[in-house]
Amino acid sequence: MSAEKRRVRVAVLGATGYTGVELLRLLARHPGVELTHLSSEQYRGKRADEVYPFLSGVVDATLGAPDPAEAVAAADIVFAALPHGASAAIVVECLRRGARVLDLSADFRFRDAGVFARWYDEHPAPELLAEAVYGLPELYRDRLPSARLVAVPGCYPTGALLGLTPLARAGLLREPVLIDAKSGTTGAGRSAKTEQLFAEVNENFRPYGIDGHRHWPEIEQELRAAGAAAGAVFVPHLLPVSRGILSTMYVRLADGSGLGDLYRRAYEKEPFVVLRGEGPPPELREVRGTNRCAIGWRWMPERGVAVVITAIDNLGKGASGQAVQCMNAMLGLPETTALEHAALVP
Amino acid sequence: MSAEKRRVRVAVLGATGYTGVELLRLLARHPGVELTHLSSEQYRGKRADEVYPFLSGVVDATLGAPDPAEAVAAADIVFAALPHGASAAIVVECLRRGARVLDLSADFRFRDAGVFARWYDEHPAPELLAEAVYGLPELYRDRLPSARLVAVPGCYPTGALLGLTPLARAGLLREPVLIDAKSGTTGAGRSAKTEQLFAEVNENFRPYGIDGHRHWPEIEQELRAAGAAAGAVFVPHLLPVSRGILSTMYVRLADGSGLGDLYRRAYEKEPFVVLRGEGPPPELREVRGTNRCAIGWRWMPERGVAVVITAIDNLGKGASGQAVQCMNAMLGLPETTALEHAALVP
Amino acid sequence: MSAEKRRVRVAVLGATGYTGVELLRLLARHPGVELTHLSSEQYRGKRADEVYPFLSGVVDATLGAPDPAEAVAAADIVFAALPHGASAAIVVECLRRGARVLDLSADFRFRDAGVFARWYDEHPAPELLAEAVYGLPELYRDRLPSARLVAVPGCYPTGALLGLTPLARAGLLREPVLIDAKSGTTGAGRSAKTEQLFAEVNENFRPYGIDGHRHWPEIEQELRAAGAAAGAVFVPHLLPVSRGILSTMYVRLADGSGLGDLYRRAYEKEPFVVLRGEGPPPELREVRGTNRCAIGWRWMPERGVAVVITAIDNLGKGASGQAVQCMNAMLGLPETTALEHAALVP
Amino acid sequence: MSAEKRRVRVAVLGATGYTGVELLRLLARHPGVELTHLSSEQYRGKRADEVYPFLSGVVDATLGAPDPAEAVAAADIVFAALPHGASAAIVVECLRRGARVLDLSADFRFRDAGVFARWYDEHPAPELLAEAVYGLPELYRDRLPSARLVAVPGCYPTGALLGLTPLARAGLLREPVLIDAKSGTTGAGRSAKTEQLFAEVNENFRPYGIDGHRHWPEIEQELRAAGAAAGAVFVPHLLPVSRGILSTMYVRLADGSGLGDLYRRAYEKEPFVVLRGEGPPPELREVRGTNRCAIGWRWMPERGVAVVITAIDNLGKGASGQAVQCMNAMLGLPETTALEHAALVP
Repeated sequence: MSAEKRRVRVAVLGATGYTGVELLRLLARHPGVELTHLSSEQYRGKRADEVYPFLSGVVDATLGAPDPAEAVAAADIVFAALPHGASAAIVVECLRRGARVLDLSADFRFRDAGVFARWYDEHPAPELLAEAVYGLPELYRDRLPSARLVAVPGCYPTGALLGLTPLARAGLLREPVLIDAKSGTTGAGRSAKTEQLFAEVNENFRPYGIDGHRHWPEIEQELRAAGAAAGAVFVPHLLPVSRGILSTMYVRLADGSGLGDLYRRAYEKEPFVVLRGEGPPPELREVRGTNRCAIGWRWMPERGVAVVITAIDNLGKGASGQAVQCMNAMLGLPETTALEHAALVP
Repeated sequence: MSAEKRRVRVAVLGATGYTGVELLRLLARHPGVELTHLSSEQYRGKRADEVYPFLSGVVDATLGAPDPAEAVAAADIVFAALPHGASAAIVVECLRRGARVLDLSADFRFRDAGVFARWYDEHPAPELLAEAVYGLPELYRDRLPSARLVAVPGCYPTGALLGLTPLARAGLLREPVLIDAKSGTTGAGRSAKTEQLFAEVNENFRPYGIDGHRHWPEIEQELRAAGAAAGAVFVPHLLPVSRGILSTMYVRLADGSGLGDLYRRAYEKEPFVVLRGEGPPPELREVRGTNRCAIGWRWMPERGVAVVITAIDNLGKGASGQAVQCMNAMLGLPETTALEHAALVP
Repeated sequence: MSAEKRRVRVAVLGATGYTGVELLRLLARHPGVELTHLSSEQYRGKRADEVYPFLSGVVDATLGAPDPAEAVAAADIVFAALPHGASAAIVVECLRRGARVLDLSADFRFRDAGVFARWYDEHPAPELLAEAVYGLPELYRDRLPSARLVAVPGCYPTGALLGLTPLARAGLLREPVLIDAKSGTTGAGRSAKTEQLFAEVNENFRPYGIDGHRHWPEIEQELRAAGAAAGAVFVPHLLPVSRGILSTMYVRLADGSGLGDLYRRAYEKEPFVVLRGEGPPPELREVRGTNRCAIGWRWMPERGVAVVITAIDNLGKGASGQAVQCMNAMLGLPETTALEHAALVP
Repeated sequence: MSAEKRRVRVAVLGATGYTGVELLRLLARHPGVELTHLSSEQYRGKRADEVYPFLSGVVDATLGAPDPAEAVAAADIVFAALPHGASAAIVVECLRRGARVLDLSADFRFRDAGVFARWYDEHPAPELLAEAVYGLPELYRDRLPSARLVAVPGCYPTGALLGLTPLARAGLLREPVLIDAKSGTTGAGRSAKTEQLFAEVNENFRPYGIDGHRHWPEIEQELRAAGAAAGAVFVPHLLPVSRGILSTMYVRLADGSGLGDLYRRAYEKEPFVVLRGEGPPPELREVRGTNRCAIGWRWMPERGVAVVITAIDNLGKGASGQAVQCMNAMLGLPETTALEHAALVP
């Protein structure tokens, strides 16, 4: 049996949104998979490389409608890069038909259907919440090989949790942590909104969602699961860049001199976590286009405050890269497969 | 009678689009006018400074619906910053009720209703085309004091025509002129379109409208009116900047050694035309936020080609600044009133 | 005696740096002053509008060397927009010759020469530190009319202090305040450094100066002077925008329900402070090109944390606009003179 | 003998400039080569990933001085990414010591030492000009397998020549072609210059080098070599983007209806040339980070003008990608090796 035949067949639903097209970019070069089904509500019937010329010679498939039956007929693994709310019903149907699903929406990220209802809507399939694995391999790697449904984390939560979980697990989060996060615009997706127009974002910078961003309860859920005794203050800001999230986080500590050891122990074997420590802090461009998370920190003893900084690409480790990493773990492949390229700098 | 009472009452219809808000910025500081009526289809009932916080303390009016009767009851001069097609009916009604109108749409820019129909739609008021003054004061200043209806030119035509008209008038345009134009994104207005999202425009650059942009026939109409014996090739491109149009234009000439004299004669008394000549070429930032047009040129004798470069702010001299300049001329005020500020650099 | 003759004669030393050219932009339109002397080490002998074409028709002076004797012979007021360290000697000499000086460098911002020495260098004129007025009119207005030497505050300190001083004065800063600040690139000046190249900053975002930025002791000096019982953690970041500083600040409070009253009392008569309160938070673009500071806040009772957000233009209220405001106060002019224009949006 | 041992040993001199670091990015993933020697004048003694954190885990070498002896001792192939003028002496010495050299500077691009002297300086090694292969594989592929010295073309020439050579070869360039080119800032390299600062380039756009850019004679040399009967007018512009060159070119033709056939015949087997034809024109982002050149065109019969548009990444096909493609051809490897990744979009 040839190598080609053993490739896992993969579908991407919602292939023309920003997370969808990033999945295509990554999966097209993945030696272990074959893209067998793509869908797009908006562009169905068109070729993917008509919508995105850069895909010519890379992905030559035609976009179908997001139909679970077709997807599962064609594929063993389904990536659902669909809007929150719209995703759940399709995911349920794909599971029912026997596929394994990686859902990039928020629909299966919460353990508590009540929390989901408060921030999104009545949950359409609460019975699956307990089964869904929160797809942050650095935290839930053990559960991925057998997972049927993976809820790929939000971009802000990924950046915050990779920086804070070691502190939470060590019992150091006893007071609300302050998360000052700054994101590029692709985090808001590709739908046409006035506030995302070039002339609104360019040469501007502003906080938003300060009265309650949907990623806040997701961050708090996971911090508490890791042992935090307190919640978080979360202030996201919109950066005039296309990709990237930099989170600057402030934690009051009695003693932060052991931070370096803590992070090294937590991440020494992680292929995608780069520890910058007390050297030059993480920057967005070093992770652009990659699945990396760079982490830096400072302990300021006279102030009793530790500053932790993380940088990720919101479409990479914050969404599609992480989804591919999860899939690799589900399939028993090296997690780095198709994710080893260097950042695009400059 | 107080100075305040002698101010001309002005309405702005479509006050929250990009040309509308630029009108507010300019008119709010105009010593001879009073903003008495603002409208916005999308935001009616809101205050202008709720939509644009920068207007707080500058314009405190509430936005009404675009209603000609209300506008004319409140104002003597009406600026219509409305979409093409939608503008004409409202303009007609404002004129009927006695206002003088400056229309920033394309609806009254063409002399020939047939040309309008080919590029836009059946013209709703062809009888007004002969009366409408093409609002480029450097070309049609004489007609402005008595004008009832001014069709403010398009942004690309303004940049092209200020550079080319002296050549056309001198009989030098005997072959198609090549206009390679590059525009910031506000030229496309503020409506929510996927292709204008930050992440689509940022770090990108592309030609568009190459098979026929609506400003092409407008440019050709005026070039021919000025004496050109041939038309134009017009290739617009989308720049990742908010404001500005730079046009690089190529003309084959037998002898271009007299270009300097030609431009100096044409523009020596023009307050908004800055001749850069053969020095450092015009750049976008030197005109940002202003009503200026910078013009540079080179004659390349061994190639038989003259290169003419113009830079304008598409919202300034390319739209709202020019509209205010026209209004000043209509009212017998110095044309520079409220338009004398320096560019924002850096 | 004509109005023209009564104009105050003003010199700008260091006129081609970013704060210098912003001073030219503002002062050229100031009805009460006359620009009589400009200097530039780098471009002496050139006309200002050769270096910055946008100044043509606005400022037509030739740039001299930064010579105190020439400056004071030509001017009553001297703006020194010179590098830290280089400024002091020239300032001292201008004062000795009888001019009043506004110094935009850090050289006279500290009360304690020891602090200056720690962060900059040995102070060349410590005897003047007690006399120098810290030029934040909202805090030190009373001292400006008689001031001989004004030390214009740094850009980060201005943004932080306008947000925090009311809390400090009310005795609410009992623990270290956390200042997460984000600045455009002009804050670093116009000298050619690799790290400020377009391709290094564009599509990037990063913290810097986390181990000790020079604006940190300046912020702490003024917080303590206002009554703060604790210091500050200060993390600046570099934004890919030309202008603007947005500071997101976190303060632990027992009760923050009175924040609105506090800010309204502190700033109700201030022409340049715009209170956004609990509405949409401040954004950079609403202050671009202006002397404004927008302030917003949130009290999060379940977390015991107040978030305060300020936005300024680092070249406006953060430097040159503030310097002009100080000069107006020194001269007994309305503080808003030449500073009333609206922001450039979009 | 293991695969590892058969890898070709490669040196990169000037590894921290923009073309140098792009070479590292590409070569680090090349299965057929091993990076054995890196040099940097500015950063010698530092690790490459200290200068560029994104390289951590990708390239872990320490930077030496640009020494030909060390380079040739360590490597069989030397990439010289050094400044014009400085490169030649080092290249000569590397050749003398037996290495094969790919030179990314202009030093060996000209056939005529007199032309080089006119635009650069006296040529230090004119005897090598006849031997050097102009490294545009689409034009000079045959000569690469045996080449000892490859002069990698300039970025503007690459974009222009791929669009124009088929016309030149077909005898269609009888009049001066007009090349309106727009480049991102990395084309100017990484040296610290005021005019390349973020705040100078951002929100700006301008022509430059209009009186004679060094890439002009390079373009004309190759056009004439391909059969053009006339030269070119070349106007480069500086775009506020990091990467990419888009060239819009205008050619007067008697009949351009055969353009499609011409391009298809010329490029049908070329792996890196993407023909957009008369569809949506090329855009910068579709080639970002790649070695591709996208070509589109329009024939405008009523104007007698053909418009040809090409897009490349100036660091990819315009420099380092092309150099790697040349190296592949020199080594008998598939030209696409290490160059097959998709563009980074968005």
